[in-house]
Amino acid sequence: MSDPLGAEALDQIFREARTVNEWQDREVSDAQIHEIWELAKMGPTSANQLPARLVWCKSQESRERLAAHAAEGNRHKILTAPVCVIVAMDEDFHEQLPWLFPHTDAKSWFEGDEEGRKVSAFRNGTLQGAYLILAARALGLDCGPMSGFDNAAVDKDFFADEPKWKSNFICSIGYGDRTGLFPRSPRPDFDVFNRLL
Amino acid sequence: MSDPLGAEALDQIFREARTVNEWQDREVSDAQIHEIWELAKMGPTSANQLPARLVWCKSQESRERLAAHAAEGNRHKILTAPVCVIVAMDEDFHEQLPWLFPHTDAKSWFEGDEEGRKVSAFRNGTLQGAYLILAARALGLDCGPMSGFDNAAVDKDFFADEPKWKSNFICSIGYGDRTGLFPRSPRPDFDVFNRLL
Repeated sequence: MSDPLGAEALDQIFREARTVNEWQDREVSDAQIHEIWELAKMGPTSANQLPARLVWCKSQESRERLAAHAAEGNRHKILTAPVCVIVAMDEDFHEQLPWLFPHTDAKSWFEGDEEGRKVSAFRNGTLQGAYLILAARALGLDCGPMSGFDNAAVDKDFFADEPKWKSNFICSIGYGDRTGLFPRSPRPDFDVFNRLL
Repeated sequence: MSDPLGAEALDQIFREARTVNEWQDREVSDAQIHEIWELAKMGPTSANQLPARLVWCKSQESRERLAAHAAEGNRHKILTAPVCVIVAMDEDFHEQLPWLFPHTDAKSWFEGDEEGRKVSAFRNGTLQGAYLILAARALGLDCGPMSGFDNAAVDKDFFADEPKWKSNFICSIGYGDRTGLFPRSPRPDFDVFNRLL
């Protein structure tokens, strides 16, 4: 590394990308969903924990199931999107560390520390959720992330077989229709939320 | 949007980027630090909460302060990096919502709900931390994120004037020296941690 990406790439991922709520009638293929994972999985997590578990609701039936647990204002954004992914996390991610982080016994760091695992799964699973958003944008797609839904109901409905999987947020993905999009909310200058020591 | 970025851009942000622990003797300018923020701040957060608070430890003195609170194995990675940023979050982020999300009274959603604010600050502040990592990479820099440090001690030392700021993780940033880097840890195929419904 050393050269910055060109302006168009930075625009696509950060500066011109927008959260969209309305979707063009254009499919997201299974191959594209795989491509998003192939990029997002490369992002760093602590000790390669990779605690995110992703459930891609693409069929109409699965999006209806998900929408039933969402805040009323979010249902349309799920039902009309080509795909809506549940970004969940495995609070027993440490069981996978012997093969994900094979050069040391990282599993033992988390055994018996359920609270530590919850914090680490939330932190690292959320990092992976952000990698997913930016990976989708890098592939030319738009995202509509949401946290307004009943997490416990989603977990019960979708993860009955995996009681340690917990939903974090959800994200509709597709080709956005920007008609009627509101202006972007303010983004503060450096000095507002940063300190340079 | 609609076209994927080229292979070189995807390599730089995701596929070829690595967490580095050793650094070239090459400065990261204040202008570059501002550029990282200018990109990272554009990423989406729920109701434009932008709860991340960033403290950039660039001076030798500030990195020594930070390193003193880090796990022994992380001290060298802080002391030798051009800059190490504390990614913190403001658990009273809702106080800023009247100007960050001006078209509705989002502040009222969080008043009196301290636990809900903690969850939302952690989720959205971590998303911003991931945007920061990928923004730095997009600008040609390398990152070394770490969570092995004493959060309470960092908070006490750096945020004495802001008791609702809580450290999340830290990240060294610079031009990496890849000599001696270990091979990348495994990244699982789609079917391992994904379900497509």
